[in-house]
Amino acid sequence: MANRDAIRKRLDGLRRKMYEEGIDYYFIPTADFHQSEYVNDYFKVREFFSGFTGSNGNLLIWQEGAGLWTDGRYFIQAEKELDGSGITLFRMQEEGVPTLTEFLDSHLEDGQTLGFDGRVISAMDGLLFEKKLCKENRQIHFSYGQDLAGAIWENRPEFPCGAVWALPEEYAGESVTDKIISVREELMNAGADCLFLTKLDDLMWLFNIRGCDVECNPVAMSYGFLSMSQAVLFIQEKALDEKVLQHLEESGVMVQPYGMVESFLQKFAPMQRVFADKRYCSYRFYKLLKERHTIVDGNNPTEKKKAVKNPVELAHMREIFLADSVALTKFIYWLKKNVSVCHAEGKPLTEVTAADMLESFRRQIPEFLGLSFPTIAGYGANAAMMHYEAERESCAVLKPEGLLLVDSGGQYLGGTTDVTRTISLGAVDPLQRLHYTKTAIGMLSLSRARWLYGCTGRNLDLLARKPLWDIGIDYKCGTGHGVGYLLNVHEGPQNISWRYVNGRTEAVLEEGMDVTNEPGVYVEGSHGIRIENVMVVRKAQKNEYGQFMEFETLTWVPLDTNALDMTVLTEEERSMVEDYQIQVYEKIFPYLTEEERSWLKAETARKEYTEEEI
Amino acid sequence: MANRDAIRKRLDGLRRKMYEEGIDYYFIPTADFHQSEYVNDYFKVREFFSGFTGSNGNLLIWQEGAGLWTDGRYFIQAEKELDGSGITLFRMQEEGVPTLTEFLDSHLEDGQTLGFDGRVISAMDGLLFEKKLCKENRQIHFSYGQDLAGAIWENRPEFPCGAVWALPEEYAGESVTDKIISVREELMNAGADCLFLTKLDDLMWLFNIRGCDVECNPVAMSYGFLSMSQAVLFIQEKALDEKVLQHLEESGVMVQPYGMVESFLQKFAPMQRVFADKRYCSYRFYKLLKERHTIVDGNNPTEKKKAVKNPVELAHMREIFLADSVALTKFIYWLKKNVSVCHAEGKPLTEVTAADMLESFRRQIPEFLGLSFPTIAGYGANAAMMHYEAERESCAVLKPEGLLLVDSGGQYLGGTTDVTRTISLGAVDPLQRLHYTKTAIGMLSLSRARWLYGCTGRNLDLLARKPLWDIGIDYKCGTGHGVGYLLNVHEGPQNISWRYVNGRTEAVLEEGMDVTNEPGVYVEGSHGIRIENVMVVRKAQKNEYGQFMEFETLTWVPLDTNALDMTVLTEEERSMVEDYQIQVYEKIFPYLTEEERSWLKAETARKEYTEEEI
Repeated sequence: MANRDAIRKRLDGLRRKMYEEGIDYYFIPTADFHQSEYVNDYFKVREFFSGFTGSNGNLLIWQEGAGLWTDGRYFIQAEKELDGSGITLFRMQEEGVPTLTEFLDSHLEDGQTLGFDGRVISAMDGLLFEKKLCKENRQIHFSYGQDLAGAIWENRPEFPCGAVWALPEEYAGESVTDKIISVREELMNAGADCLFLTKLDDLMWLFNIRGCDVECNPVAMSYGFLSMSQAVLFIQEKALDEKVLQHLEESGVMVQPYGMVESFLQKFAPMQRVFADKRYCSYRFYKLLKERHTIVDGNNPTEKKKAVKNPVELAHMREIFLADSVALTKFIYWLKKNVSVCHAEGKPLTEVTAADMLESFRRQIPEFLGLSFPTIAGYGANAAMMHYEAERESCAVLKPEGLLLVDSGGQYLGGTTDVTRTISLGAVDPLQRLHYTKTAIGMLSLSRARWLYGCTGRNLDLLARKPLWDIGIDYKCGTGHGVGYLLNVHEGPQNISWRYVNGRTEAVLEEGMDVTNEPGVYVEGSHGIRIENVMVVRKAQKNEYGQFMEFETLTWVPLDTNALDMTVLTEEERSMVEDYQIQVYEKIFPYLTEEERSWLKAETARKEYTEEEI
Repeated sequence: MANRDAIRKRLDGLRRKMYEEGIDYYFIPTADFHQSEYVNDYFKVREFFSGFTGSNGNLLIWQEGAGLWTDGRYFIQAEKELDGSGITLFRMQEEGVPTLTEFLDSHLEDGQTLGFDGRVISAMDGLLFEKKLCKENRQIHFSYGQDLAGAIWENRPEFPCGAVWALPEEYAGESVTDKIISVREELMNAGADCLFLTKLDDLMWLFNIRGCDVECNPVAMSYGFLSMSQAVLFIQEKALDEKVLQHLEESGVMVQPYGMVESFLQKFAPMQRVFADKRYCSYRFYKLLKERHTIVDGNNPTEKKKAVKNPVELAHMREIFLADSVALTKFIYWLKKNVSVCHAEGKPLTEVTAADMLESFRRQIPEFLGLSFPTIAGYGANAAMMHYEAERESCAVLKPEGLLLVDSGGQYLGGTTDVTRTISLGAVDPLQRLHYTKTAIGMLSLSRARWLYGCTGRNLDLLARKPLWDIGIDYKCGTGHGVGYLLNVHEGPQNISWRYVNGRTEAVLEEGMDVTNEPGVYVEGSHGIRIENVMVVRKAQKNEYGQFMEFETLTWVPLDTNALDMTVLTEEERSMVEDYQIQVYEKIFPYLTEEERSWLKAETARKEYTEEEI
């Protein structure tokens, strides 16, 4: 953490620059040029100028002050980190606290200028600024052509430029040429002449390449331009070796330097209908395109194609999810065996050392490339915080009691995994067992859904939530999201969620789409439970009523027998649990040691209940 | 049925008129001035000119021919009725058959004129004609100022003008004055100065009046105009007696003749923002308003208010639904007792005589005013036709075997009912019992739903459909619709249905909304099953997760024990059936004779199952 004086000095430097450029307010979001979910160190401009290290924060600077907007997860941390910096903390979504846009709206005066780096603001957000701030009786100027803040950042980290590699067709399942043909068809259907593609995972998918420029996301900084006759990839040439270059050349892709994209956009043939996705295209490039072209708005046509996994991808995913399930199962056994021993010996495990151990189990899988997101390991009350990040120095010590929530995943040659298990480390109190059991039933009920083609996640969400809603409990998030294929762990357009938002487009669940299934219970100050599997949509029977659909489960990690209270279940629910457990054993046991096997056998065995128990 | 020569003569007369007026194509839909669900005899212009008597049909006439568009329910009937008339049958939704608009689009030539009575076409449909038919290279004229066809109809039935009566506030639960105040608030929120109201049930609701101008719908021909200072009701004065006039006067409503609405629309203060619902406002009046005003588009603000039943309405509905349930239960007992006797005596009951008997049971209820829709009584394979209408002369004879589907309802001072039971008349085959049982479980599961406020019917539909989808069966319609309060049996905006239509607005289920719950199985040529209750949305517990909601059931008619196969059910499902049956008995028995009681007691008793049965 930078000290307060350093922060004040940086802000003063920026204010001088703002004064010279005639900028009244300067806005620094937490984003890269591609609206990626995580940002590389190079893009941590907001952290550099505020000292605030949380993952979500928007900074606004003006001559007399500065403000930082962040959400409830970070209020305490932000207070501490901003102390003495002269930056005011705006607690997002608290009553009476204006949003950044509302703040600007009430402070901007006629003729004033709002500045920002137009490459890190999405067109959607930029257009929202225009709509909300520019009024009949007030003219506001936007200065978005330069990175004012970044330019005065001394010793700024290098722009990310990790090695790029080609994903062989035996893993991608479809050639770049074929992908390009199918995307061109979509462009024609949408009435577009060409596509300006800015979303990194879509670019990786289209060109069958992978990189490492964003934490946990195997993507490379790049842009793409696809017309009916041309396919151009803008990418840092020093990140490419001969093999990738050959792959791209063979695929008919023209490679241009990453830095040339802007001048390309300025000069390619005018008056075209350019497809651009406002959510991911930067405001600067959007405005630039708009000067000479007609923009066709919409979600990137690559998004849905990428979401539907092809048979080759699915075959790899089945293998990789099984290997990942084995690693997690081995970890669970290791943890249960060691937690009390280590605790008794005075060298207790912690949330972080447990996560490290889990990673080491995954590392033994030959295809393992890295984590798909920072592991969430939350013990006891920590697990009630949905986005809890344990710190090595301050994290909780594990005792042989209660529940540890572990949400984790890996990047593999052959897929991206995402799985959560809540693990009992000893005795679990009855309420927590009830919550665990209801969560498990919700997860299993959704897994067994059967529906007519045409349903979206909103039709099915109730299955996961019903056991909890029936006892007056909810989890304040969606039930599931799409997962990339050796790409981002969060992917659209499919999801499972119940909330109705008028006008929001929902994605019909298509054969081959994968989706997580992760209900939970979060009781502040007490405990948190989440159980998460990944599933793939597949076809079931087709008859006079239509095409029925169902899920195939990819994740096979045992439910925690010690945390389950089978006596609160109906006969049907008990058999749902038993069926899953038996399948876990059958699929996993060949990969286990004798010791692990006998534990898993007991853990997953069908249990006989006495009359009294039921 | 008119004979063919008469039809040809009528069409020739119309063609002469068209020629004189310079109209190339004349369109006659099946509709009244208010887009009511059923049309009064006065509005059966399409039937007069075609001889086709089905409930759905659009007629198009040109000099060289004529075409009638209708749906699959009526293909056979239409073929017969149109034979020799020179009218071509267009089978809607069959492959290769153009829609009426497509037909017009491919036949209309530059400069030609399409004529219709602009008062019986909704603004929505008229605007669709404009959009689809008027092209850059083709100018089409619309002639919609006169009722060309109706004008040459000799001996046309009288324009409907049934007696109008005031619904006392002890039944309406809210004064007209209060309703007007709340609608005005909605208008202000929508940025409108006034409302032009054309939907008849909305008008009845707003002014606390009822009429009898549409079959089964207790509504009176009328229009309404509501500004911030004025409330005008356009209605036929001869339909009003002193009492209604006094009620309207006391409510501050100005009464104007129904026929004056057009001249009123032509002259009221210009440049207003007029709220008009395109679905129900006629094309003629919409265009007229558009000449001098700005139109605020949207669903009538009265629609949602009417849908949410107030506590007084709900109290009456509980009583009326119970009385209606008693009548249906008595009928079921009577039917089961008499079907074999009558059959053995050679005087068998029929679908129609059974329906008559059910009506006679309802007539014994003092508050009964009439049917809420024509009773559907379908025996055996007839029940597989979802909109089957039995004819007295040709309907099926009831035998002491199989299933009779009866979907019926009444209009009462105190509510409108809608209920379906499928009744076994003797032995039922195993497949039909399975279908009956799964349908019953679907209905009961939805009844027991519990959800967080914010859900729409799309979140819940799966509960009713799951037992059927799980065995590969679907019913090709929604699960439920809103029901009026002594008004139309079909009411919006709430419904229960699963289909996702991008851009369609869904109604959040609000406390006090009522909705039907009617899953079913329809096997062509074999059998049809539907079980339907009406439910009301109410609040359940409120806690840190939000406001939970649930349904209150209003319909208490026993499920058919003989058609239920309890052995296919889980323990939980069996107890759902038993709980409902026991409640039926407890609520209904005080109103039954000794004989009926002992039957119902046996019918609803909790049954013990042997190990073998389960």
